[in-house]
Amino acid sequence: MTLVLIAIGCGLLAVLYGIVTSGQVLRAPAGDQKMVDIASAIQEGAQAYLGRQYSAIGIVGVVVAVIIFFTLGGLSTAAFLIGAILSGAAGYVGMNISVRANVRTAEAARTSLQGGLTMAFRSGAITGMLVAGLGLLSIAGLYWYLTGPGGLNLTVEDDRHTITQALTALAFGASLISIFARLGGGIFTKAADVGADLVGKVEAGIPEDDPRNPAVIADNVGDNVGDCAGMAADLFETYVVTIGLTMVSIALLLPNSALLPQLMVLPLLVGGVCIITSIIGTYMVRLGASGSIMGALYKGFWTTAILSAPAIYFATNYALGDMSTAFGGGVTGTDAAASVADAITGMDLFWCMLIGLVLTGLLVWITEYYTGTNYRPVKSIAKASETGHGTNVIQGLAISLESTALPTLVIVVAVVATFQIAGIIGVAFAATSLLALAGMVVALDAYGPVTDNAGGIAEMAGLPDDVRARTDALDAVGNTTKAVTKGYAIGSAALAALVLFGAYTTDLSRYFPNLTVDFTLSNPFVIVGLLLGALLPYLFGAFGMTAVGRAAGSVVEDVREQFRSNPGIMAGTSRPNYARTVDIVTRAAIKEMIVPSLLPVLSPVAVYFIVAAVAGQAQGFAALGAMLLGVIVSGLFVAISMTSGGGAWDNAKKYIEDGNHGGKGSEAHKAAVTGDTVGDPYKDTAGPAVNPMIKITNIVALLLLAALAAG
Amino acid sequence: MTLVLIAIGCGLLAVLYGIVTSGQVLRAPAGDQKMVDIASAIQEGAQAYLGRQYSAIGIVGVVVAVIIFFTLGGLSTAAFLIGAILSGAAGYVGMNISVRANVRTAEAARTSLQGGLTMAFRSGAITGMLVAGLGLLSIAGLYWYLTGPGGLNLTVEDDRHTITQALTALAFGASLISIFARLGGGIFTKAADVGADLVGKVEAGIPEDDPRNPAVIADNVGDNVGDCAGMAADLFETYVVTIGLTMVSIALLLPNSALLPQLMVLPLLVGGVCIITSIIGTYMVRLGASGSIMGALYKGFWTTAILSAPAIYFATNYALGDMSTAFGGGVTGTDAAASVADAITGMDLFWCMLIGLVLTGLLVWITEYYTGTNYRPVKSIAKASETGHGTNVIQGLAISLESTALPTLVIVVAVVATFQIAGIIGVAFAATSLLALAGMVVALDAYGPVTDNAGGIAEMAGLPDDVRARTDALDAVGNTTKAVTKGYAIGSAALAALVLFGAYTTDLSRYFPNLTVDFTLSNPFVIVGLLLGALLPYLFGAFGMTAVGRAAGSVVEDVREQFRSNPGIMAGTSRPNYARTVDIVTRAAIKEMIVPSLLPVLSPVAVYFIVAAVAGQAQGFAALGAMLLGVIVSGLFVAISMTSGGGAWDNAKKYIEDGNHGGKGSEAHKAAVTGDTVGDPYKDTAGPAVNPMIKITNIVALLLLAALAAG
Repeated sequence: MTLVLIAIGCGLLAVLYGIVTSGQVLRAPAGDQKMVDIASAIQEGAQAYLGRQYSAIGIVGVVVAVIIFFTLGGLSTAAFLIGAILSGAAGYVGMNISVRANVRTAEAARTSLQGGLTMAFRSGAITGMLVAGLGLLSIAGLYWYLTGPGGLNLTVEDDRHTITQALTALAFGASLISIFARLGGGIFTKAADVGADLVGKVEAGIPEDDPRNPAVIADNVGDNVGDCAGMAADLFETYVVTIGLTMVSIALLLPNSALLPQLMVLPLLVGGVCIITSIIGTYMVRLGASGSIMGALYKGFWTTAILSAPAIYFATNYALGDMSTAFGGGVTGTDAAASVADAITGMDLFWCMLIGLVLTGLLVWITEYYTGTNYRPVKSIAKASETGHGTNVIQGLAISLESTALPTLVIVVAVVATFQIAGIIGVAFAATSLLALAGMVVALDAYGPVTDNAGGIAEMAGLPDDVRARTDALDAVGNTTKAVTKGYAIGSAALAALVLFGAYTTDLSRYFPNLTVDFTLSNPFVIVGLLLGALLPYLFGAFGMTAVGRAAGSVVEDVREQFRSNPGIMAGTSRPNYARTVDIVTRAAIKEMIVPSLLPVLSPVAVYFIVAAVAGQAQGFAALGAMLLGVIVSGLFVAISMTSGGGAWDNAKKYIEDGNHGGKGSEAHKAAVTGDTVGDPYKDTAGPAVNPMIKITNIVALLLLAALAAG
Repeated sequence: MTLVLIAIGCGLLAVLYGIVTSGQVLRAPAGDQKMVDIASAIQEGAQAYLGRQYSAIGIVGVVVAVIIFFTLGGLSTAAFLIGAILSGAAGYVGMNISVRANVRTAEAARTSLQGGLTMAFRSGAITGMLVAGLGLLSIAGLYWYLTGPGGLNLTVEDDRHTITQALTALAFGASLISIFARLGGGIFTKAADVGADLVGKVEAGIPEDDPRNPAVIADNVGDNVGDCAGMAADLFETYVVTIGLTMVSIALLLPNSALLPQLMVLPLLVGGVCIITSIIGTYMVRLGASGSIMGALYKGFWTTAILSAPAIYFATNYALGDMSTAFGGGVTGTDAAASVADAITGMDLFWCMLIGLVLTGLLVWITEYYTGTNYRPVKSIAKASETGHGTNVIQGLAISLESTALPTLVIVVAVVATFQIAGIIGVAFAATSLLALAGMVVALDAYGPVTDNAGGIAEMAGLPDDVRARTDALDAVGNTTKAVTKGYAIGSAALAALVLFGAYTTDLSRYFPNLTVDFTLSNPFVIVGLLLGALLPYLFGAFGMTAVGRAAGSVVEDVREQFRSNPGIMAGTSRPNYARTVDIVTRAAIKEMIVPSLLPVLSPVAVYFIVAAVAGQAQGFAALGAMLLGVIVSGLFVAISMTSGGGAWDNAKKYIEDGNHGGKGSEAHKAAVTGDTVGDPYKDTAGPAVNPMIKITNIVALLLLAALAAG
């Protein structure tokens, strides 16, 4: 029980860090009146959007909660609501800090680059620590309550099952919020961005972030509701699902180990110590002699990653007493996973977690390679822009396809290595250490929208060129850090896939002990499930891309109408109606997010019932199980290709704007703007939403099993 | 034995049709001297390219043949060579007709649209009939030889095995040629097309097919070597693999049936009667009152499809004696496939083949929907072009993602239905009837490059505007028919996947009877195999797209150099050096095709040896088996999205050129040209090459098993 309390303490520490740092941020000067006015407009828009979004999600959430209550009972409903509310809270608070830090970053950038960097990164760190802290608190708190005041006993099979089901419901709550938030926010941000660009840059010929563009505030609101709030909800969900799943897999595979209580809490403790290393890391973000902003951010990340290795070692040793005692007490069975579990030691788990840390580093490095302006991929897209729009897009698509290869290979190597060391549990612990760094990774990501906004405010408020140059420099690395987080999230989904499938088969044999389900690849219903699962990311991607197009179209029409009815706007003599545009994007985004979000919720249910009706219940479960793997096998590639490809397109444009291939205004630049526009919904709407989509498909399948067994 | 001879007779009939129709085509007038000169240049270029391509492939082929000889023996080597040579021959002869029919189509279009249509379609029909005829002759001939003069006996297990191994080697020969031909031809055609457009339309501002553009002949050569010869080799391979696999699955699953000899020959007979219905269909291609060219082509297709149903019924009844006797003699085993096989009747097989025909019709209709100018998808891309290059590409990508859904659903339904009726054998027979229509489908496809060339020749030779309008109209439908064939080919690959995997597991238990391989989805090495298999189409697509970009770049440089060193070209006073550009594309395409083509050949070998070294032979085979399904699960989506998306982009441009959204020269048109350029390597290089890539991965795995067992 002490171990859980330590984990809870670390979670509280993260929240405390958030509160203290918020104070520091909010005490900083917010600039002149013009800047404050602009920032207020962004704040109001963001709050109005999130309010409407959460109301819409709330309706869906209440319906789902009622269904859960009548099928799975009160405990699951409570866990579901905790997951949903905390997921929303992480995004909401993060966004609220972000919309206040943006103007303060612009103001700080007046004096120095370091000042702007510190302000933007601290704001990101608040979101990061809240995601990790609230995530850890939700699981650790639930576990503490169930095994303490709740009176559940880990040695009783039914109690273990109740615990794992509550953890699943918690994850479902978080997932349901995150898919809506990711997709709704993603549609908002890109509809505003694409719409503003089309009608501003292309039609009216005014620069980006020009205050005469009525869509410019909506564009800045979008950065906060999509890249900050949506991303935070997504990572919160990934954190909860991954750590929760690791605990579930321990309960399933080592039910009779004498070390079970300690093992169950170990993932929480690992999450806890990595919050401490993440906090230390945030203080290492400083510009060095080279003045490299990316270098400064990396200093923070690498400090955290390197310190986490010994921290995890000590946490494991402390929790288990020593590193060399075999756990014993594995489930009896013929499959490889079970036969391995008995012999695992603390040292084995440590090696697996070390592999998880190395994997994190490699995923970061690979994403940096594919989206950074210093390497071949981005340079090749910039070069291809010289010959026109078409070749820019062709090269961008080629890079997006190619960018899937290295992440897949390192993930595969990590799966094989951790499985060889400690079976499925080893894979789960690698995923846990990967996610334990979430605080730091989210900090890097949430830094992006703040600097993006700061640049916009600097432009709109007419700050001097040297300030604008500093905010631009801060903004440029944001593209890469944003891509890093998305690759990281989807990578964790690939690791979690095996564990989720293990949970599915174990639940299946528990609920339907007399049913023989054939999961071999020679069963045609397995192929059918794989194909249908593989289809989901494609269809989901198509919906997301089309939604952005439609919503952007409504922005274009509104802005055209404003220009037409009020010629003073273009003349600079009257102020555009920013709020109206924000309102239009808000309504469009919320309308567009509903149908695609329901796709992964309803598809598993539909596949099970249709196949079961045609070929019997066993084949229904076989198709459903295969669908869970099909969605990850195809989703991994769709998500990585979209997020890395989009990041590369964006930075190819920035690379040209830095004066290469003719610089700003050249033909190459126009082609690069096209590529950037294409990459926008790729990297910020469709691609990142694939991660929560995969998770939700899996969790719905697990809950469906439980509901079928109960009904 | 009579049944085989009937099938061989039908194959000879197809070849005879080809010879007679070639005579008709070649006797038609070839136009004035200018037209003949242009056509000669295209002929020379195409022949030079194919000569070089086949020489390069020949070197690889000889090396592979030597390896096969020393691992699998003389019979397999002979079958491999037959497959390779006939695959090449189908493409070579088809291309030779195509480069002669182009100029005759332009000449015939001087007098009437029907004249041009007849000429172009007849030329396509020659290629179609040669593909189906030579395909059928190769399998039927090999089977006739082995079971007749070869003295092999179907009742002896070892003899059955020798037959299936020879069929596999035959398929490998065809596949190896087809991947090189598809990819090499695809790179050639799109490098020339994109290069010519970039430097001609974009830089020099001259229209497409302007004779002053030095790349214009290379562009026309490309249509023939890519869309005609490459496509023919691909479909030849698909035909041979599918019909051969159906025979293999019969031998594996019904080894002791009294009807085994008749059943083995039934796929050949079905192929034979469908050649007859295809020939009848070719005579139905005539313009109706509406003057719709697509309608005329469809009349031919639907005649063939509808006549094939009773033809297949009679063939089945004739071969088996009656439709209601259960076959009996299935392999004993616990899996669903085996337990079903015993009870199958002729009527069951007929229903499965009918489903195959319906599936063909649905795949054609869906592709028409996604790529035709009359429907929402193409219109939505055209509409999105109004707001610029970026939105055109976004909408095109959304459509390309979406276009995978309906084909996947109908394929899944067909798999489930045929499996429920007759197990794996039912799925195989559905694939056979699908492929039995290959003669007609290839005819529709091969029509495309002829009309494309005819349009180019009409432009270059300065034929009157009304003639040019007719060749344009003929050309427009070619985009859809070309997309249809690609969807059809990849659809067959999805059906064949189950059968291929069945062959893999059966071979595995035959060669390694004491090895227990775990193919369930809970084995991590199965997940690893699925992920690595899923990666292949992405990596392959990236290679293909990049290769086109690089090769197009060398075209651009050559043309720029010609314009610079000889100003008379642009003035129209001196002739560009067409041959030099053709030569440059030739060298670039052949160089670029080698590495990507080897990817699917070497990957299965690498995956097996690496996994086996790490985790033992059984896991090596598990990962390899899963890889075979991973490559189809992801390849199906990559291929359909690329080919349908590319076709939709192309026709969105044509739709605008027909006067919509501002017509030719408008901003929307410029955006649509960008989309078309992006779609080019998608639909003609990377997408279609995925089909042979999937097949070759599978066949290499089968041969690897045999080689490991022998070595």
